[in-house]
Amino acid sequence: MRREGLPVREAAQPIGGSITEALAEMAREHGIWLLGGTFAEEIPDDERVFNTSLLLDPKGEIAACYRKIHLFDVDLSASGGGVFRESDTFRPGDAVAVAETPFGAIGMSVCYDLRFPELYREMAQRDASFLCVPSAFAPETGRDHWEILLRARAIENQAFVVAPAQCGRHSPDRASYGRSLVIDPWGLILAQAVDKPCAVVVDCDLGELERVRSSLPALTHRRL
Amino acid sequence: MRREGLPVREAAQPIGGSITEALAEMAREHGIWLLGGTFAEEIPDDERVFNTSLLLDPKGEIAACYRKIHLFDVDLSASGGGVFRESDTFRPGDAVAVAETPFGAIGMSVCYDLRFPELYREMAQRDASFLCVPSAFAPETGRDHWEILLRARAIENQAFVVAPAQCGRHSPDRASYGRSLVIDPWGLILAQAVDKPCAVVVDCDLGELERVRSSLPALTHRRL
Repeated sequence: MRREGLPVREAAQPIGGSITEALAEMAREHGIWLLGGTFAEEIPDDERVFNTSLLLDPKGEIAACYRKIHLFDVDLSASGGGVFRESDTFRPGDAVAVAETPFGAIGMSVCYDLRFPELYREMAQRDASFLCVPSAFAPETGRDHWEILLRARAIENQAFVVAPAQCGRHSPDRASYGRSLVIDPWGLILAQAVDKPCAVVVDCDLGELERVRSSLPALTHRRL
Repeated sequence: MRREGLPVREAAQPIGGSITEALAEMAREHGIWLLGGTFAEEIPDDERVFNTSLLLDPKGEIAACYRKIHLFDVDLSASGGGVFRESDTFRPGDAVAVAETPFGAIGMSVCYDLRFPELYREMAQRDASFLCVPSAFAPETGRDHWEILLRARAIENQAFVVAPAQCGRHSPDRASYGRSLVIDPWGLILAQAVDKPCAVVVDCDLGELERVRSSLPALTHRRL
């Protein structure tokens, strides 16, 4: 979350700053659990920033904080895409975040994290019912990897996957794949966003999660 | 590999038995690397058997042996499928198998193993260029999980996935999903089998594997 074009470092602010306040106000106003991902979190004595998500409870209190662990240092120019060096600007987090809520535990991740199945295995180990992946995938990787990896995370961890995604062209040199998805624990798509900003509302039946896990108890069959 | 209907224990034989000999003869005759998966391997002093794959080199020598690690103890009756209790009959293996060949390392796995991403991460760690998954998926899980999980394993480990699969109805109470697939390291399907026994021949360009790994070096970005 920052004004398009504003350099990341100039947009950085601490937890408790204006972005936190705005998220807390929205959570309170609507009486909802709200996952805001992500904003540039300033770090004292470091030129870099964290790429940070916050989970707010219905009172507007911070229930959990996740700092993106895997940084996107990737060169997509051969397939017509951009060159990305997140590690020039960002410092990686190092803590897996799974937050308890009254409707089940929520595992927090961001975008490029999706390529690392071991992160979601750790969330499943901590009994996450929801795996959240707010993202801005590149168009080149989104087309071929976005849906497949999200559905695989749902299937192998038998959890709901909630993946809101930026869409459209943000500036002359930056566009995002979009196609936000909500996926059930069997891997079926419950909802997909259209290619413009929109709200998607989905009922997630926690009974379905129990049915999948009891008929195919793969999470109890791990051996490595 | 056994005659349909023959109980698994009666079909069991040691490594070096008639199935090994038949595979070795085929490998020698055609001058090929041949992965034969799977047969029931007898275990001295155990009622159970291993579910074993062998990799034969062009001289007919055994290059590698893999004993299925994850056993399928699953009840699909709610979705119209069968009830499976592999652990009644099979003893699980406990060793990851990655075999060196002149064209790259081959990671060996079988069927239900596909649901466990940590197995393939270990193969990638050992520099596998090919992930092999000979399978007989159930129709109910094949429809929803087979292609997605195979493509995810290719994408996240940036390796070729080679997944031959039994197809058709084997007996009144057993059918398999089929749809053998070969997938490239970007996750694209290079070939898919039709719904009857057939041979699929595919060129796997190892240069493509290098291109994917150098433009998107996710395997070097692991942090957990």
